[in-house]
Order: sequence, then structure tokens, then C-alpha cells
Amino acid sequence: MILQEKLSLSTTGFNDIIDITPALRKFLEESGLKNGHVLAFVPGSTGGLTTIEYEPGLLKDLPEMLEKIAPMRERYHHDDTWHDGNGYAHLRAALIGPSITVPFADGRFQLGTWQQVVFLDFDNRPRSRQLHLQICGE
Amino acid sequence: MILQEKLSLSTTGFNDIIDITPALRKFLEESGLKNGHVLAFVPGSTGGLTTIEYEPGLLKDLPEMLEKIAPMRERYHHDDTWHDGNGYAHLRAALIGPSITVPFADGRFQLGTWQQVVFLDFDNRPRSRQLHLQICGE
Amino acid sequence: MILQEKLSLSTTGFNDIIDITPALRKFLEESGLKNGHVLAFVPGSTGGLTTIEYEPGLLKDLPEMLEKIAPMRERYHHDDTWHDGNGYAHLRAALIGPSITVPFADGRFQLGTWQQVVFLDFDNRPRSRQLHLQICGE
Repeated sequence: MILQEKLSLSTTGFNDIIDITPALRKFLEESGLKNGHVLAFVPGSTGGLTTIEYEPGLLKDLPEMLEKIAPMRERYHHDDTWHDGNGYAHLRAALIGPSITVPFADGRFQLGTWQQVVFLDFDNRPRSRQLHLQICGE
Repeated sequence: MILQEKLSLSTTGFNDIIDITPALRKFLEESGLKNGHVLAFVPGSTGGLTTIEYEPGLLKDLPEMLEKIAPMRERYHHDDTWHDGNGYAHLRAALIGPSITVPFADGRFQLGTWQQVVFLDFDNRPRSRQLHLQICGE
Repeated sequence: MILQEKLSLSTTGFNDIIDITPALRKFLEESGLKNGHVLAFVPGSTGGLTTIEYEPGLLKDLPEMLEKIAPMRERYHHDDTWHDGNGYAHLRAALIGPSITVPFADGRFQLGTWQQVVFLDFDNRPRSRQLHLQICGE
């Protein structure tokens, strides 16, 4: 069985990191499914999905690591096209990736105790986002 | 229902970035399926899959970012094994990842307007590639 | 049909890279399924999954690349929370990602000849890990 849902999020942009684990748990519980996986997907090219231990230190460390790889103030060729100053956001999004798949068994996600599913909004302005959630299971 | 297909690509190598969204759309339309997801996979260790806004600026920015992480001309231990000079390509591929999963609903991919699915060929020569596509849906 | 299994691994930590392809092949063969995909997932925030050519050179190159991005001896905000010195491991795990999906057709994984599925344990001590494996197919 396949079920789909939209998850609406208001973000501050600028590497905002949002814990979407509670929303995924709610989606799973309401489905009544016992075994399968949930796919979350960002329909957009300036956000990403991964897992991390959601604690204040790492919420600073992760953007600092990405700042070394794709600095926010660097000049990008992307600006020659759109002049919107968010080239860094596109690069970080392509690197982290737009999707994540989390398995569940006996109605529970197989996440670690200190592991949360997070959406990262890299864009350089606040955004209203609608993530696509899809559950595939039995 | 699960359907499978090969997608043949001729690449120039050297961080060639190819928009495979039209091929995925064709595969989805021909399947007649309405809800589910498509998995694309690179059977090889010098290519990767992600999404990006497919515009000329970012097609330069993305390889430039990867050049900082895994420079093409650096000396890698991989060369001690094979002497083929493509250590950088293996590292970039491991980082970007060999697969991507894109959900569809009501027969349409849940991609953003400015978001394309891309195959990146990092190898240091032109290649003929066959990506594996798998659709799982109803 | 969906089948699930745990894969127990003893790791040395410190960027230990383990080839889990034989375990995935065994899981697939025992399932008797012909077409579908296997999802492997790390229930924890200091390990990752990707593919690489499993040869001695790259097993050195990959940690060296990650050392540039998230150095082991750097001071991280994560330490202000837990004082466990593994901030680098959390960052590398978030970057590589906690899951991988590999398609199979006619009972065989669609991997390249020189491509192996690997688990990376980034933590700063030996660990007993239980990866979650899920097969979805027909």
C-alpha cells in the first residue's frame, strides 16, 4: 500500500535545521502500516534531508562545516544567471541530497535513540515549504 | 508493481552533468502508474546522482565545489593500485552517492519547478553508461 | 513483499570501512525475490552508507578527504553538549547519509563490477552495530 501526504513547514532560511521526526511518526501512526519505509522528498533545489542528533551544538557545527565547502559570501556562476545570491544554497542542497528513506518494522521507525530526521533550508530568505511524504508498506 | 529499465547515456566524463529528468518522465508515463517512486542507480563507482537546478552557472559551480573537496590533480592512494588517475572521481562518487529516489503522485513527479534529476560522470574519460531505473508503484 | 533483517557488525570505529555487499547478497538470495530493492539503514548518527570500489588505496583516500571537510581533532560545538569528542563523526555521518537503496533484477543486484556497498563507522571507539536491512520486491 502507498500513501502520500504534504508536510508544510515555515522556515527562516539561512541553514535553518528542522526536526521532522515527529511529523514522520504521526504519518506512520495514522497509516496503521506495520512494515515498510517512508520516503521524504524536498520539491526544490535549495533544501536537503539527512539525519543528525538534534542538539544545539551540532545545529551550529553542521552549517559551519558546509560554510567551508560552499561559503555563503563567495561569488558563484549561478549569480550570473539569476542574481539572487543563493548559489551556496543550491550547492549545499545538491551535496546533502533532496530525499531520505527511513524503514519501519512492527510500526516503529528503525532510528537510533539520538538520531533525528532533519530538513535543512539553505535558501537566503524565509520560505514556506511543502515536503512530499510517501509511505510504502503493509 | 515493479518495472525496470536501462537508461543508456554517452558522457564526456570529467564531471559531465546530464539532465535525466526527461528520461524519468518518459519511463513514468509509459508505466501508466499513478502513485509510487522511481529509483535511479549508477552501476559503477565513478558516477553519482542528485538533483540541481539545471542552468549554466551551477553546472560550473558544482564541479568547482567538488574540486575543493577532491581535487582532480591531487595524488591519491587509489593510483598505487590501478594507476588510472581517477581517484578524485571515486571520492566524488562516494560523496554524492550512487542512487536517487523520486516520488510521484497522480502520475506526476513531485519535483520543484527548477529542480532536475542529474547524473554526474566524474571519470577521466568519455564513458558509455547504463543507469538502472526501477519504478515501484500502483 | 517486504522482509526485514538485522545485520550485526563489530567495528573498530575511527572511519572503519566495511564491505557489506556479501551480507546483502545473502539476504537477497534467502528471500527468493527476483525484482525489487534492498534498503540498508544505520540506526545511529555516527555512521554512514555509500558505495565505493573496495580496494586498499581508496580505503585510505576516503577518510583523508573527509578529514579535510570535518577534521577529527577540530573543536566542535557538539563537545559543549556531550564532551565525547566525536563531533567530526556526526558531521561526516550527516554528509554521507544513513541509508542506501540498491535495486535488483532477475535476482541479481545491479551493482558495477568494481562497486561495493560499504558501511562507514566514524565514531571514536569500537562499536557493535546493527544495521537494518529491508527488502521490497516480488
